[in-house]
Amino acid sequence: MEVMQVLHMNGGMGETSYANNSLLQKKVIMMTRPITEAAVTALFSATNTTFQAGLAIADLGCSSGPNTLFAMSEIITIMIDVCKATNHEMPEFRVFLNDLPGNDFNTIFGSLLPRFKEKLSEQMKSKYGASATLPCFFNGVPGSFYGRLFARESLHLIHSSYSLMWLSQVPRGLEGNKGNIYMARSSPPKVLRAYFEQFQRDFSTFLECRGQELVVGGRMVLTLLGRRSDDPSSKECCYIWELLAIALNEMVSEGLIEEEKLDSFNIPQYTPSPKEVRLEVQKQGPFSIDCLEVSEVNWNSLMNWSILDTNSNSNIVLKDGGYNLARCMRAVAEPLLIDHFGK
Amino acid sequence: MEVMQVLHMNGGMGETSYANNSLLQKKVIMMTRPITEAAVTALFSATNTTFQAGLAIADLGCSSGPNTLFAMSEIITIMIDVCKATNHEMPEFRVFLNDLPGNDFNTIFGSLLPRFKEKLSEQMKSKYGASATLPCFFNGVPGSFYGRLFARESLHLIHSSYSLMWLSQVPRGLEGNKGNIYMARSSPPKVLRAYFEQFQRDFSTFLECRGQELVVGGRMVLTLLGRRSDDPSSKECCYIWELLAIALNEMVSEGLIEEEKLDSFNIPQYTPSPKEVRLEVQKQGPFSIDCLEVSEVNWNSLMNWSILDTNSNSNIVLKDGGYNLARCMRAVAEPLLIDHFGK
Repeated sequence: MEVMQVLHMNGGMGETSYANNSLLQKKVIMMTRPITEAAVTALFSATNTTFQAGLAIADLGCSSGPNTLFAMSEIITIMIDVCKATNHEMPEFRVFLNDLPGNDFNTIFGSLLPRFKEKLSEQMKSKYGASATLPCFFNGVPGSFYGRLFARESLHLIHSSYSLMWLSQVPRGLEGNKGNIYMARSSPPKVLRAYFEQFQRDFSTFLECRGQELVVGGRMVLTLLGRRSDDPSSKECCYIWELLAIALNEMVSEGLIEEEKLDSFNIPQYTPSPKEVRLEVQKQGPFSIDCLEVSEVNWNSLMNWSILDTNSNSNIVLKDGGYNLARCMRAVAEPLLIDHFGK
Repeated sequence: MEVMQVLHMNGGMGETSYANNSLLQKKVIMMTRPITEAAVTALFSATNTTFQAGLAIADLGCSSGPNTLFAMSEIITIMIDVCKATNHEMPEFRVFLNDLPGNDFNTIFGSLLPRFKEKLSEQMKSKYGASATLPCFFNGVPGSFYGRLFARESLHLIHSSYSLMWLSQVPRGLEGNKGNIYMARSSPPKVLRAYFEQFQRDFSTFLECRGQELVVGGRMVLTLLGRRSDDPSSKECCYIWELLAIALNEMVSEGLIEEEKLDSFNIPQYTPSPKEVRLEVQKQGPFSIDCLEVSEVNWNSLMNWSILDTNSNSNIVLKDGGYNLARCMRAVAEPLLIDHFGK
């Protein structure tokens, strides 16, 4: 095995939540910090190179919001600490921020990055003295991670958080899923199979591409929404979508949306079990799993994390778990709904 | 000399023109094609590497319009041809498109790149058979090229066309330039010196940064607006701005703009002579000049080039040189004027 994979998966019935929520994303990245630290330490001890031409890190599915650079900030901090601890010469960093071509890279480049660089520079100075600098070069990489994005053996560390549960497309063969918008307890086996096979195709393509792009000894840290259960239609991952389906069916009966429109609407997501992830990694070949952990994110504990939300001045009612979950679901579902049903 | 520089400079009295014009940009890139070919050939014969981790090309000042990818298209085509001719194994290409953080990278990523990739793929298939593919990975790099943009020794070829005559800022010490908006025949020597020294600082910083970023044996092809004359206030580079100054002074006397506003307005541009370019390159060290050519672009000949303008459906009156020049000047001057005087 020339490349080792460090893999972390998040899941948790009901309380599990979704991307685009500032607090949750930060919480998840901080929860996975020990795993990232282990991956970075392994990277520095495994490669005998001096990271000539820079140490290249990619964040896949970076989005464009207050969290876009949070993971990179954590990773760079960890790298600096590991460098110091192991007496490794500080490399120059090359950071690659990837998302789909429709992502708002202008906002990343025009406002998020300048502020981030300033902060990073202040951090360096306060930690290592006034003359300390950190050569760190940023790139935007437009494209789907279900295809090649980087040249062969050009990356040292790949990171992705809360993106890989999104499929490359809505699976084909969902005709029998009438009334549902995702896998549901009432979905026929054919529908569950279609979703699973789409996940298999997508995830193995992902692994194949990343296997080509990582250097020998490179590392990968993936966090994705998953489930504990072996049953893909179990309540822990599907219930939330079933609630949305009930609301949409209600709207059909009220004549607000057309029935055919609802029938052709399905969520392009798959939240795999640890077993399913392990199987694909083993089948695909170039990676081995160094660590696979499942954790639950409890929504109602988020209020204890509000201290993290330094960027927000909003008065979110953090004590109201239902409200929080609804906000989060809206952030994820709204673009999908608008795209399909119109505004 | 570990790195060789191939340098090309464009100039021409009166008829010389400015960036953002589709036809002109294409014409210039095609005029410089032999120089780019020589640079690529030298690159392939100089480096003994197999371009592991990809062949990295940067375009500095790529802008975001119909020409953004034209230079890259030419360079990649040349590289494929040189590869075939020299029996070099086809490398994977890493393309870095750089401009200031305010550049519209969303348009590049969302609409220009997808079309470009399609074209490139068609070209490959028509030239080398249906199964031919070209692994080519694109990155956006936000930042000023008057500072480091890339990691040490991470680029093989640097290209820049019609960008390097722009200074990093309006020079300081232009108080005595009342009534003018650029170097003019009536400018005091102090003003001419301030412009020249700003060019020296900027261009030497540029060379220093690029020298660090290029691999040993790497090449650089630069095209910039220049002048033949040793006199920095000669008509060939300043006359066009003097005309704009006359118009602005007229607007002051009509009360349309404030005099103080005009006094504080100066164009951040310097169009160096070949001698001045050579001097900076020699002083700076890491580069040597392989080729420095001066050519003139005749506006009125542009109608012969209209065949190049495949993307445009506009009815530009190409026969009218004055009209063309005014259009071009507007493209360059309008953003500067709006930024200073408001809409």
